[in-house]
Amino acid sequence: MSNVNHSHASPPHLDWLHGVDRRLRSQLQFLLEADRLKTVLRGSRIADGSRRENSAEHSWHLALFAMVLHEHAVGDVNVSRALCMLLLHDLVEIECGDSPVFDAAACDNQAEREQLAADKVFGLLPIDQCIAMRRLWDEFEAANSADARFAKALDRFQPVLLNHLVRGGTWTDYAVDEARERAMNGALAERSPVLWQVCEQIYDDAVSRGWLRAS
Amino acid sequence: MSNVNHSHASPPHLDWLHGVDRRLRSQLQFLLEADRLKTVLRGSRIADGSRRENSAEHSWHLALFAMVLHEHAVGDVNVSRALCMLLLHDLVEIECGDSPVFDAAACDNQAEREQLAADKVFGLLPIDQCIAMRRLWDEFEAANSADARFAKALDRFQPVLLNHLVRGGTWTDYAVDEARERAMNGALAERSPVLWQVCEQIYDDAVSRGWLRAS
Repeated sequence: MSNVNHSHASPPHLDWLHGVDRRLRSQLQFLLEADRLKTVLRGSRIADGSRRENSAEHSWHLALFAMVLHEHAVGDVNVSRALCMLLLHDLVEIECGDSPVFDAAACDNQAEREQLAADKVFGLLPIDQCIAMRRLWDEFEAANSADARFAKALDRFQPVLLNHLVRGGTWTDYAVDEARERAMNGALAERSPVLWQVCEQIYDDAVSRGWLRAS
Repeated sequence: MSNVNHSHASPPHLDWLHGVDRRLRSQLQFLLEADRLKTVLRGSRIADGSRRENSAEHSWHLALFAMVLHEHAVGDVNVSRALCMLLLHDLVEIECGDSPVFDAAACDNQAEREQLAADKVFGLLPIDQCIAMRRLWDEFEAANSADARFAKALDRFQPVLLNHLVRGGTWTDYAVDEARERAMNGALAERSPVLWQVCEQIYDDAVSRGWLRAS
């Protein structure tokens, strides 16, 4: 909850662009509003540990994960669709901020708040694009397709790599123990057994170094 | 040239992941090395003007531009391919930094330096993925397909929007005049006449406000 940028009241107005038709103006308004995702900070740090990651660069990183790791998905995955989901999945945070998975207070009513935010954010687009992108976002949230499950697996996998690289990260911040971490990301075992195997090795190593509390 | 992060000597080693095969280790090494793009700063500012944009979040933003604006491309564009190009196009900057278009010194030998960087960065991947991604990157650089020309058009269009939004941005920083700006982005007129029309209106407005020097 604390990460949302409350200083921004409404999307930049482009009414002064007289020669531009309404459809294109809506598209540009959406794209400029989306820029605010660059100011939403996550709990995780970037790989060099120098600062927290923002949700825009996180979304880029995950799209790259999808391009490179799709052979490790379960089921017949359409990479382009998974990729689009990952580019869109955090956009609601420009309205309601990032909710760190270990922060119970931040996760209160999260689903409800994010639905309202999705109405608002995707509602800036022309209606056909609003519907198409909202469907992708809903599919990701519901994890009710192979594409969405793979995309969600990557969203859980990337912070595990980063936490290990920075010697603890959100595990240390929230004094997370091994059992809680394994339970939280357990869906990965079905969604990508290969990537889950990597997580298991990382968890073992992190526990042995004290970056993740032993249960 | 000044933006490259020289403090990073070599990609993080994942040799300790014994149970993980070499192919997957290479993929993870590439993805962790790519994280450095989050530390490469561009000349442009983000939309609220609070700080300079980094190349990772810029790449995310452009991918979103491709998803939303592909109807304004010229020719038969495969959006997924254009999107992948945009996700990859700046990766070489983790080796040689961003070269602001208005900074002649930074652009010296740029193409040559970037080719060497591409060898190094994509070389981290398993050979089949290295070849496939390098081809996409080369295609973008050469602008020799409708997909690449559309992707390149967006890479030029986005900073125009941001510069106007922050009342000058790199135009003011480099005392750019209208003629130089129009000449530099003139390829947009052919690559997306609709987006070029938007640029023309923005330029007129920016000149009238003194954010872009009259020629």
